[in-house]
Amino acid sequence: MTDYIGIDFGGTNIKIGCFNSDMKLLWKTSIPTDADMGPQIVVDRMVETIKTAASKNNTPLETIKAVGIGAPGPAKYTQGILIRCANLPKFTNTPISKMLSDSLGKPVILDNDANAACLGEFVAGAGKNIKNMVFFTLGTGIGSGIISDGKLLHGSGDNAAELGHTIVNINGRQCNCGQKGCSEAYASASHTAARAAEAIEKGEESSLKDVLKKKGKITCKDVFEHSGKGDKLAKRITEETAEVLGVLCVNALHFSEPEKIVFAGGMIAAGKPLLDRIKYYFNQHIWKIKKEDTLEICFATIGEDAGIIGAAALAKESARI
Amino acid sequence: MTDYIGIDFGGTNIKIGCFNSDMKLLWKTSIPTDADMGPQIVVDRMVETIKTAASKNNTPLETIKAVGIGAPGPAKYTQGILIRCANLPKFTNTPISKMLSDSLGKPVILDNDANAACLGEFVAGAGKNIKNMVFFTLGTGIGSGIISDGKLLHGSGDNAAELGHTIVNINGRQCNCGQKGCSEAYASASHTAARAAEAIEKGEESSLKDVLKKKGKITCKDVFEHSGKGDKLAKRITEETAEVLGVLCVNALHFSEPEKIVFAGGMIAAGKPLLDRIKYYFNQHIWKIKKEDTLEICFATIGEDAGIIGAAALAKESARI
Repeated sequence: MTDYIGIDFGGTNIKIGCFNSDMKLLWKTSIPTDADMGPQIVVDRMVETIKTAASKNNTPLETIKAVGIGAPGPAKYTQGILIRCANLPKFTNTPISKMLSDSLGKPVILDNDANAACLGEFVAGAGKNIKNMVFFTLGTGIGSGIISDGKLLHGSGDNAAELGHTIVNINGRQCNCGQKGCSEAYASASHTAARAAEAIEKGEESSLKDVLKKKGKITCKDVFEHSGKGDKLAKRITEETAEVLGVLCVNALHFSEPEKIVFAGGMIAAGKPLLDRIKYYFNQHIWKIKKEDTLEICFATIGEDAGIIGAAALAKESARI
Repeated sequence: MTDYIGIDFGGTNIKIGCFNSDMKLLWKTSIPTDADMGPQIVVDRMVETIKTAASKNNTPLETIKAVGIGAPGPAKYTQGILIRCANLPKFTNTPISKMLSDSLGKPVILDNDANAACLGEFVAGAGKNIKNMVFFTLGTGIGSGIISDGKLLHGSGDNAAELGHTIVNINGRQCNCGQKGCSEAYASASHTAARAAEAIEKGEESSLKDVLKKKGKITCKDVFEHSGKGDKLAKRITEETAEVLGVLCVNALHFSEPEKIVFAGGMIAAGKPLLDRIKYYFNQHIWKIKKEDTLEICFATIGEDAGIIGAAALAKESARI
């Protein structure tokens, strides 16, 4: 029987999962977001899907205790209101929690998508059996979440854990956020690709030149692939990305001292070679006055279900209060 | 009547304060540490002082509920053991909590001195009535503490909140800790002075040259004073210190999103001119996608009593558990 519903609300797809009281995933589905239809229609479709899901699990709607949603920010999470999402323009100032709650008659809790994925990894993945964790999703940007003493760290206005925008190189490379020298401005997938493209435009030789010519753009995957094949420029860009991520781990350790730092997101498809270089640079940059023998840097283990698991964990936590 | 004892255990002096259940300071004293006498004698003198303090407040020793100590790290705080303090060589691996507890028959709780001062400011100073705060002490090094959702953030091994060693300039200036580009390597009092001395040694012109000649060294205070008088080099060094502290505030905001960032320590004697420049650089470096109208950057308000107040607050918290 379904106790909790976890929703991973994305710009392209909405993933919905049904969980029992032990947080076992009973059933899941994914529907297109069709964000252009506007908030009411999208919410109605979510409600329909939840009702279908409940019936598939022989669960009377009444027995569902709470619903959790992970959504892109910025948002007023404690109030359950999406402020403005780049990929969801019609959802500006949408009280999504209240809309869902009114339709379902259930408590609905909203959090940042990176926080939800972080919590998912924490309860069911790489973070099992620890109490302090820092989580990074490496994609277009660098999302992050912090678990401190077993709980998500939210900050005074629900916008803590924006580690992608901590500055690692004062007055360095321009970031999309307006700051200079953010870790994201070097080490996200899009900035890794952009740094390669910029170097080529400046005249550097690289096997990526042909890719740029053929496809009109370079992806982070291209950079990593050509690095693996020995291209000098691609290798330098890849090393710089790993170095910034290593420094980000140093800073995360000095902030909240987690037992584990967990990387997730599209970029970790690069696998062990990337993880090994991040660890290498962490060890290069970390202080020498204390031996850091307790921190583990690793990849996420539960993949794309982290979002719905984390959202359901939020629901479970809120239902307990 | 005294309910809690707060001890600020320093390399030179030990400050001891008596507090009632409302955390009102009833009596305080300071005794020389005389660290060379070794742990047992020092602890015996602390016990004597606590007994004297209790009698001065007409407090039978039995009514004291708990004792808190703030001491320099690194230490195993939860176990109450000092590992090694630079200024207390005879206190290596000293189980100070157990020694005091055995003598007094009271629970004794140990924490980092920066954490204790942070908690002191939080309960009785600049942090009153908020729930999230980041605290910096600007002295020889940069100490720090983080209050998240009303509680000190300790991390997995009691060594969280080492923000002075977060890297703001990848592969930048060498720090004493072994890392490169730490905020402390630029913006602590000693590194501010060192940067000025290095610039003069490289041949830069400055009114600080005479100070170096006369005193054989430059202090941070000298740099700030000569900056105020218009010396170009001193001004540049002062601005760089303020800029790094501004960036440290940006990073602290993106980590734990405090309502307030509070600066304490010897360096804040520089007053409003320094605070204004830190705020200026914070505003220069902070992102533009979200207006940061809620964060307040300010100086600590309770001065040198923060250590004993915070230590007593630790005692009160531990007694409640």
